[in-house]
Amino acid sequence: MSQPAGNAVIAQSGGPTVVINSSLAGVVEAIQQTELAGSIYGARHAVRGMVAGDFVDLTDLSGAKLELIAGTPGATLGSSRDKPDAEYCQKIFQQLAEKDIRWLFYIGGNDSSETCRIISEVATDSNYDLRTFHVPKTIDNDLVLSDHTPGYGSAARFVACALLGDSLDMQALPGIKIDVIMGRHAGFLTAASALARTEHGTGPHLIYLPEAVFDVDRFIADVDRMYSAHGRCVIAVSEGIHDAQEVPVAQLLAEQLSGEVERDAHGNVQLSGSGALGDFLTKLIRERLDYKVRVRSDTFGYLQRSFAGCVSTVDAQEARASGRAAVQAAADGIEGASITIRRTSDTPYTVEYVPVPLREVAGKTRTVPTSWIENGCDVTSEFIEYARPLVGPLPQVGSL
Amino acid sequence: MSQPAGNAVIAQSGGPTVVINSSLAGVVEAIQQTELAGSIYGARHAVRGMVAGDFVDLTDLSGAKLELIAGTPGATLGSSRDKPDAEYCQKIFQQLAEKDIRWLFYIGGNDSSETCRIISEVATDSNYDLRTFHVPKTIDNDLVLSDHTPGYGSAARFVACALLGDSLDMQALPGIKIDVIMGRHAGFLTAASALARTEHGTGPHLIYLPEAVFDVDRFIADVDRMYSAHGRCVIAVSEGIHDAQEVPVAQLLAEQLSGEVERDAHGNVQLSGSGALGDFLTKLIRERLDYKVRVRSDTFGYLQRSFAGCVSTVDAQEARASGRAAVQAAADGIEGASITIRRTSDTPYTVEYVPVPLREVAGKTRTVPTSWIENGCDVTSEFIEYARPLVGPLPQVGSL
Repeated sequence: MSQPAGNAVIAQSGGPTVVINSSLAGVVEAIQQTELAGSIYGARHAVRGMVAGDFVDLTDLSGAKLELIAGTPGATLGSSRDKPDAEYCQKIFQQLAEKDIRWLFYIGGNDSSETCRIISEVATDSNYDLRTFHVPKTIDNDLVLSDHTPGYGSAARFVACALLGDSLDMQALPGIKIDVIMGRHAGFLTAASALARTEHGTGPHLIYLPEAVFDVDRFIADVDRMYSAHGRCVIAVSEGIHDAQEVPVAQLLAEQLSGEVERDAHGNVQLSGSGALGDFLTKLIRERLDYKVRVRSDTFGYLQRSFAGCVSTVDAQEARASGRAAVQAAADGIEGASITIRRTSDTPYTVEYVPVPLREVAGKTRTVPTSWIENGCDVTSEFIEYARPLVGPLPQVGSL
Repeated sequence: MSQPAGNAVIAQSGGPTVVINSSLAGVVEAIQQTELAGSIYGARHAVRGMVAGDFVDLTDLSGAKLELIAGTPGATLGSSRDKPDAEYCQKIFQQLAEKDIRWLFYIGGNDSSETCRIISEVATDSNYDLRTFHVPKTIDNDLVLSDHTPGYGSAARFVACALLGDSLDMQALPGIKIDVIMGRHAGFLTAASALARTEHGTGPHLIYLPEAVFDVDRFIADVDRMYSAHGRCVIAVSEGIHDAQEVPVAQLLAEQLSGEVERDAHGNVQLSGSGALGDFLTKLIRERLDYKVRVRSDTFGYLQRSFAGCVSTVDAQEARASGRAAVQAAADGIEGASITIRRTSDTPYTVEYVPVPLREVAGKTRTVPTSWIENGCDVTSEFIEYARPLVGPLPQVGSL
């Protein structure tokens, strides 16, 4: 294929983050600068807007407006979790053809990379001349071939700031505290709770990731051990913790409570948006450990991905640079790619952006390496070294 | 009484906040500057440390250390929810006498002001020469005679930032979202969600305070009306919402689920630390409104009072100034007082610190004025004007 003339469309897909609009700004400004495309369109609610022809013209967006959008949490174009099939794609191409759109920049995570692959392959099969670029975004940090993903650093910062404050709260009024953190298959976000530790004995004292089997008896023994040692116990638990049969504890509870579970178009069972897992673990500790102390749980829920004002500077910069890198790859003549982030140095921390074929990323899930998990209830210092530059410096705290 | 020679003790009581250590720093630095007392002690875990003689010497705390402590979330001295009786007070006086402590600076909220009154009155009855000062602190903003209380502005900022991000998240992926916010009797914190509104139609669309009766049928009708108008609905609900008989919905649920409720030493039923209320309202909407859309809830829980890095500048300054004002009142020869904050001007925003007798504040609860509640499901612009300077400027957001 030669470099097509034509226009570009940008879409934002999956769960929003506080920096996904930085990626949008990065794509827009890079197209404006490279003059890759004639007009720049934004699709409202991702594939839904693409299938309905619901576009907003971003061609002449001013620098000031771009800065404002870049700093806004949430997906300003609107998002979607729809998964297109071949028929859906044909409807998309009809709408794209009407606007002579030949470039697609799709900002999203795991499921979105799969959507990109489907659209790209159906376009090839249908002889619709479209070059599809996946710009990475996910707080779960679970895209393969990347050191990390835009959105993760800020969500991890939220988790670290929450655990830092919560651990100090628990020092003041001791008891047992469970914090339930997002992460279906990948425990990177829950692992980031370890960054909150400021000195020996500061929480979190226990960290449970979905990469390890969650065993109730072992959990109770862990809590007993830590509470006995510290007089309090702060526990970070991933919403995706599961039994030896890989059934999430939250799903077992949902089935027990209502007899059915809710799934999205990608087949994912709903885990967030309910306090049931935290309440279950609270009840379990109260029943099994007769400490007569406060046992509480908080489920961080959607705040982790949306909270305004808790942004990692590095994350925002990289989200923007990822958008720019996708346009650069397009300008370089690459026919379609997923942008990956590679760490090129630890000290000083530096990265590069490497385009890879869509099929190498699409629908694959990266998880926390087993070597970073300690005794099934903690993470190693290697993980902490990995995550620290992504999250940025935390508030300084003192003690008496 | 003439001005007693002797030493001072400072304590932090009740639920910690992100600025209660600013008040501690304010008391310490003001005593250092005024030379009110010889030695300055901190009581570990409030009355528990006072009864056990568990003190830390703060007399020579450096300015640098004070700054670090002032910026640290949580109650660095440790806190307690114990409520002393006359016998408990006698044990306290034994310990205070051993260290010749004649000044007590007690930083805390509603229940703590009552503790101050009890200690002060038993001291008088026992001829123990003690001057007791209550330094205000509560995220609930429910102390009488004050315009607002230290701790409220930062917690309200957390709520506003959370709702700002959450409303944008819901714009991107529309549905119905319930956010459960702390506040047993006073809805000030839930009301602060209104500050998140950036333009017409931005959430929260409905706000329920414990100052109004919560009626399930009316709630469903409200949600139906707002969802129909906006295609989404973001709802801020106080954990303390109650039926016409003033029984909290959360308590009814707890009784239904486990047959019993947990109470603290002050007789308060536990409302926080569980997602049950949010899950109940989610289920209610799913059953009663057949929209086939995402319905989710988040319970903000302890993050509201502890989250590191979400601090209102005005709140931190006022927390510190409240501590200083208590020492100034003592230096002025006042024999005991609760420090109140009065707003002296709206534009520019200014306040003054007025000491009042302990009995005028102790154990009394201030609630959101009825005139600030709109139709039982919103707050007025008058409330927003009131709260804005306490919370400070929020992140700027844009839209396309």
